[in-house]
Amino acid sequence: MTEALKKIIYLGPNGSYCETAKNKFCKKLGLDSIEQEYFPTVKKIIESAEQNPDIAGVIPIENSIEGVVRETMDNLLTVDDKTLQITAETVIPINHCLISKNHDIKKIKKIISHPQALAQCQNYIQKTFTQDIEQIEKSSTSKAAEELMNLGEDYAAIANAANAGIYGLNILAENINDEPDNKTRFVFISRNKTIATGFDKTSIAFATKNTAGALVKVLNVFDSMSINLLYIDSRPSKKNLGEYIFFLDFEGHISDEKTKRVLDLIKLNTSCIKILGSYERKVL
Amino acid sequence: MTEALKKIIYLGPNGSYCETAKNKFCKKLGLDSIEQEYFPTVKKIIESAEQNPDIAGVIPIENSIEGVVRETMDNLLTVDDKTLQITAETVIPINHCLISKNHDIKKIKKIISHPQALAQCQNYIQKTFTQDIEQIEKSSTSKAAEELMNLGEDYAAIANAANAGIYGLNILAENINDEPDNKTRFVFISRNKTIATGFDKTSIAFATKNTAGALVKVLNVFDSMSINLLYIDSRPSKKNLGEYIFFLDFEGHISDEKTKRVLDLIKLNTSCIKILGSYERKVL
Repeated sequence: MTEALKKIIYLGPNGSYCETAKNKFCKKLGLDSIEQEYFPTVKKIIESAEQNPDIAGVIPIENSIEGVVRETMDNLLTVDDKTLQITAETVIPINHCLISKNHDIKKIKKIISHPQALAQCQNYIQKTFTQDIEQIEKSSTSKAAEELMNLGEDYAAIANAANAGIYGLNILAENINDEPDNKTRFVFISRNKTIATGFDKTSIAFATKNTAGALVKVLNVFDSMSINLLYIDSRPSKKNLGEYIFFLDFEGHISDEKTKRVLDLIKLNTSCIKILGSYERKVL
Repeated sequence: MTEALKKIIYLGPNGSYCETAKNKFCKKLGLDSIEQEYFPTVKKIIESAEQNPDIAGVIPIENSIEGVVRETMDNLLTVDDKTLQITAETVIPINHCLISKNHDIKKIKKIISHPQALAQCQNYIQKTFTQDIEQIEKSSTSKAAEELMNLGEDYAAIANAANAGIYGLNILAENINDEPDNKTRFVFISRNKTIATGFDKTSIAFATKNTAGALVKVLNVFDSMSINLLYIDSRPSKKNLGEYIFFLDFEGHISDEKTKRVLDLIKLNTSCIKILGSYERKVL
């Protein structure tokens, strides 16, 4: 199914959680020997994979604390679903570490990281350090780790263990996130055709003909056919406050008769519908 | 209804869109003479208003392009709904301007702003400037405007017109957002009791007993009672991927018999439910 692929692109920089997800996909799909390159944004990954049939992408789609990755949803919406789709998913545990040039945690005066990572470790920071520790926001956890190289020994970064390895830094504390079950779901986007495994999900996006009653009618179709919904979310249509696009994941593969039937039935109450992908489910 | 209030707090800094919303609320509610202070985060505003009966807050809740303000939703969820609730809403148009010390747009080489504002003006930037213009991310549009004071004349900021007035800067271009209908909805949070106006909405958050079928059952109650849903969204429960809290706005005031009845009925399928507020609707 993946013989035409020549390159895998993923969200960088080196040592990102998305790189870990990419490695997991490559191992599972037998793609280790294919060219690999990291890209700076989800948008650029989706655009490149859409334009080049021999390129597949790996992008984050949902985090258990922060919720859906908006850049991913908004850009998947603009893709022609006859070409590029989600063809696999995986879940990566997020294990925030405190890393530094220093070996001594007591000498740390400043912590740098992405605002979300800082927010996710506030209890740890307040328990471990005095009130006057300075927290400085950076654009990603991996960039924060990279920047440590040019900063003094009183700096530490919140990043993942892989970052410490790449830059030869010390891990001062592991798994410092306040919520222990911090996970991110990543998806593989490609032109591959998936086959039903018996444990699949289908992801769709749609707008309803009339937001009020129509959404309930759409959801009722799933209920009446005993199809489990796995996920529902809304994003603004970007036209007006109060107009939404809905995202829905449900059990079943697009090749199943039951899935084809439910899609036909909900079209009675949607003004547009896009199949984002149909692929093997991972237990979350 | 507001005689006990001694202070209004809102999301700063000076010249923020939230300040514009605060001014609108103060005018409408006759609170102009009350003490006013801006706070750095939504979380601190909600905490202060919850702890102090004589403090009300103004916070952003939803933008037409970006969607719901997650910090607002997550922090409203932790509030005791017997004390603090949403008691009013207003909608403010977002009008991004290019402002600078310079009068000449041709001399601009660097643009600073919040990443969302930069993203919302990409078409304008690409049409107006050559490819090599540098774009630098700052933590807010207002902070970007403030920073201009210490930067050279080749810098411009994307911010609102109020910022230009505050710092005596020039407006080089107005309404530069790519999507013309960029609006943000703000809410007033207080201990005020609202009364039904005949054109109200009630905002609730709930978790279902079983995410799959129960959500449909909850929505069906609204459908069967012909109550229009105005908004639905989900946020992760923060416990596990796949577990969600749902946010729902619907037509009606908490003092209506019909609203009381629908809330009683949906409780059959929710494991917990919180009333975020019941207040006069603004046309969006």
